[in-house]
Amino acid sequence: MNDLTQTPEMLIATMGARARRAAAALSQASDAQKADALIRGAQALRGQSAAIIAANARDMESATDNGLSPAMLDRLRLDAARVEATAAGVEQVARLPNPLGEVISRQVRPNGLELTRVRVPLGVIGIIYESRPNVTADAAALCLRAGNAVILRGGSEARESNRAIHAALVQGIVEAGLPADAVQLIPTTDRAAVGALLKAAEHIDMIVPRGGKSLVARVQEEARVPVLAHLDGINHSYVDGAADPAMAEKLVVNAKMRRTGICGATETVLIDRAYGAAPALVKALLEAGCAVRGDEAVQAMDARVAAASEEDWDTEYLEAIVSARIVDGVDDAIAHIAAHGSHHTDCIITDDAAVAEHFLNAVDSAIVMWNASTQFADGGEFGLGAEIGISTGRLHARGPVALEGLTTYKWMVRGTGQARP
Amino acid sequence: MNDLTQTPEMLIATMGARARRAAAALSQASDAQKADALIRGAQALRGQSAAIIAANARDMESATDNGLSPAMLDRLRLDAARVEATAAGVEQVARLPNPLGEVISRQVRPNGLELTRVRVPLGVIGIIYESRPNVTADAAALCLRAGNAVILRGGSEARESNRAIHAALVQGIVEAGLPADAVQLIPTTDRAAVGALLKAAEHIDMIVPRGGKSLVARVQEEARVPVLAHLDGINHSYVDGAADPAMAEKLVVNAKMRRTGICGATETVLIDRAYGAAPALVKALLEAGCAVRGDEAVQAMDARVAAASEEDWDTEYLEAIVSARIVDGVDDAIAHIAAHGSHHTDCIITDDAAVAEHFLNAVDSAIVMWNASTQFADGGEFGLGAEIGISTGRLHARGPVALEGLTTYKWMVRGTGQARP
Repeated sequence: MNDLTQTPEMLIATMGARARRAAAALSQASDAQKADALIRGAQALRGQSAAIIAANARDMESATDNGLSPAMLDRLRLDAARVEATAAGVEQVARLPNPLGEVISRQVRPNGLELTRVRVPLGVIGIIYESRPNVTADAAALCLRAGNAVILRGGSEARESNRAIHAALVQGIVEAGLPADAVQLIPTTDRAAVGALLKAAEHIDMIVPRGGKSLVARVQEEARVPVLAHLDGINHSYVDGAADPAMAEKLVVNAKMRRTGICGATETVLIDRAYGAAPALVKALLEAGCAVRGDEAVQAMDARVAAASEEDWDTEYLEAIVSARIVDGVDDAIAHIAAHGSHHTDCIITDDAAVAEHFLNAVDSAIVMWNASTQFADGGEFGLGAEIGISTGRLHARGPVALEGLTTYKWMVRGTGQARP
Repeated sequence: MNDLTQTPEMLIATMGARARRAAAALSQASDAQKADALIRGAQALRGQSAAIIAANARDMESATDNGLSPAMLDRLRLDAARVEATAAGVEQVARLPNPLGEVISRQVRPNGLELTRVRVPLGVIGIIYESRPNVTADAAALCLRAGNAVILRGGSEARESNRAIHAALVQGIVEAGLPADAVQLIPTTDRAAVGALLKAAEHIDMIVPRGGKSLVARVQEEARVPVLAHLDGINHSYVDGAADPAMAEKLVVNAKMRRTGICGATETVLIDRAYGAAPALVKALLEAGCAVRGDEAVQAMDARVAAASEEDWDTEYLEAIVSARIVDGVDDAIAHIAAHGSHHTDCIITDDAAVAEHFLNAVDSAIVMWNASTQFADGGEFGLGAEIGISTGRLHARGPVALEGLTTYKWMVRGTGQARP
C-alpha cells in the first residue's frame, strides 16, 4: 500500500478524489440501498468475527510489547461480545429515520418561482480517532447513512483491527451495489497523513476528531477543514436558593459521580448563598467518594474540603473531584459560567420557574438544563439514535451531533420560464 | 484612537472582549428593542445626512488624489439619495420577522425530560468589506437584528464615510438602551488589523468578507475563524434537448446579460446535442452584445464565435462574455458542472420534468434551478428580505444567507429531577 515515492499530500489527494466520486454516487443512491449496505456490513462483521478477533490479537500483542496502559489495552481489546455489539450498532444506524430529502422550507414567490430547501448529504467527512476499533464501524455507519463518503484515520495501535472491520464494512457496501470508496481507511499510520488530511479543504468537507483532549487540540489547532468537536466539558450544576434539597443532592451526586470520565460530567458545583442545605450537599458528595475543592465558604462547611485554586475553576477533572463555590444568586452563577465554562452543558436546580428560564436563556452553552443531571448530555439520551460527537462550536451543529449534523441543504428553484426583470 | 504601543492583536482582543459582553446583553434584549435600535439608527442616518455626505466628500477627495478608478469612485460616492436608501435599508431589516426564539424541534423523552432546540444569536461576527460605505449600515443591521455583536472593518478609502455612518448607528443603539459596543468599527486602516481579526477564533464566531475576489481569497486563505462566503460564481445554464426554444433563448440571454457583473450571472452555456435550435440561441447571445467562446461545434454555428480554451470553462467573466459547448445529454452536463462549476448556481432549461428533477438532485450546488434565470440567485429574490452574502460552503448556511444564517441554536432540557440511571 505504501508507495515510497508518494507524499502524504498525494495520498490524501488521491483518496479525496475517490471519496468525492463515491459521495456523488451515494447522494443519488436510495435510502434503502444505504440501509441495506449497513445491514450487510453488520452481517459481514458477524461472519468475520473470528478474523477480526485474530487481527485484534495481533494489535494487542504489539500494544502489550509497547507497554500500553491497562486502560488503553482495554479500549483496544475486541472479543466476540464486542464485535457483536459493534454489528448491532451498525444495524441500529440502519434503522434510524432517513435524514435526507426533508423539505426544510418551501415558498412560492409572487413571480411564481417555487423555492424549496432540501436536506442533502454534506459530502466527504474525515474521522480521526484513537484506540477504540469500534469507532471504525460506528462513524462509518453514521456517515454512510447520511449519504456521505468517509475517510477514516484510526490509531496505529489498532491498525490490524481497523483493517479487518473496514474490510467487513466494504463487503456490505459492495454487496449493496454502492462504491467501495464510500468508506476508505488511510492505509498508513504515518502521522504526516493526519496533517495532510487536516489541510485538505478541497477534498474534505468536515473533520470529526474522536479521542482524548490532546488529539482534539491538535486537530483544532492544525485544521484548515471545518472541525466538529469539543475540547472541554467544564460543566456546572448550579444549586439555586429555591432548590429542593433532596432533588439537589440526588442530581449533583449523579451529575458528578455516575460516570466521572464522560464529557457530560459536572466539574463545578455552584451553590447559591441563599440555599440552606449546602453543608449536607457537600457531605453527600464527600460520602459518595468525591474529593471536594472549595472556596473559603465551602471549606468552612466540612474539614474534608480542600482549598480550590484559581485553576480549579477552569479544570475538567474527569475523575472523582469537584470544585465548589458559593455564589450570590443566579446572575453570579451565570457570570461564573461565562468566565469559566466551556459552552458544553450547564444546569440549574431550582423550584423557581422564572429563575430557571432566566438561566436557560442567559447561559451560552450548547446544552442548558433545568432540574436534570448533566450526565444526560448524550446523543442517545437525546433520542438521536447515535452520535458522531458533541460540538461546542457555534456554527452548523451544536451539542450532540448525529445524522442531521452530517447533512447540509440545497436550494431548489422551480420555474416556468421566469427571467429576472 | 491609535495607541502606538498597541499591537493589532491587542486591539482585536480588546474589541473582541467588548463585543462578547455586548453580545451577551443583546442575546437577552427583546426583539422590539433591537428593532427600535435600527429604526432610531435610520433616523440618525437621515438626521446626519449632511455630515455623512461631508465626510464622504473628504474620502472622495483623497480617493481622487490617489487615482481610484471611476468605477471605484462611483462605489464610494454618497449623496442624499444614497444615504436615504441606506436608511431605508436599515428600516427594512427592522421590519423583518424576528429570527430568534424559534423552537426548531421539541420532544419529550420516555423519562419525562423535555428537549427543545431553540434559535439563538450566533455571537460575534466580523465583516470585512471594501469601498461601498453602505455596507457599514447593511451588515450591522442584519447582525444586530439577529442578536449579534459585530466588528466592522471597512476599506481605507471609505474611512471617513464609514465613521460617520457608524456614529449614526451607534446613536440609535444607545438611544434604544443597548450597548454601544454592539457595533464596533475597527479604528485603524492598518492591514495587520485584518490579519489579527482573521485569526481571533476566541473572540469572533464567523467572518463575512464582502468585496471582490482578491479580498475573499485572502480571507479564506488566512482565516482561522469560520468564513461565510463564495469565491466564484461559475454558473451554468444547461439547455436540454427537450427545452422550449423561445424560453431557452429568453432565459439564457437574461441569465448572462441582464447584469453581467453579479455573482448569479451565467458564465457557461451547455447545449444538449439533441437541442435543435442551438444556432439561434448562439445568435441571440451575440446579438444581445455578448462575446461567445465556443467549442468546435459551437464555433461552426456562427463565424463570430471565438475558440474557447480549456481555461474558459473555469472562468468567471463577470462581463459580456460567455463560454458555450455542446454536451451529450443531461449526464454530460452534470459531469461538466461537477468538473468546472463553483457550487454556486446552476440551471436546467427543459420541458421534461424527469430530466429536470434528475439535474436538480445530481448537481451539487448551493442553488439548482429549473426553467428560471440564474440571475435570481439573490437573498432579496429568495424572500429573505436582505442578505449578508451567498455561501458556497457546505456547513452552517448555503446559498443566500440572511438573518437565519446569523443564528445558531441551543438545546434546552427541562426536567423534574431526573438522574441518569
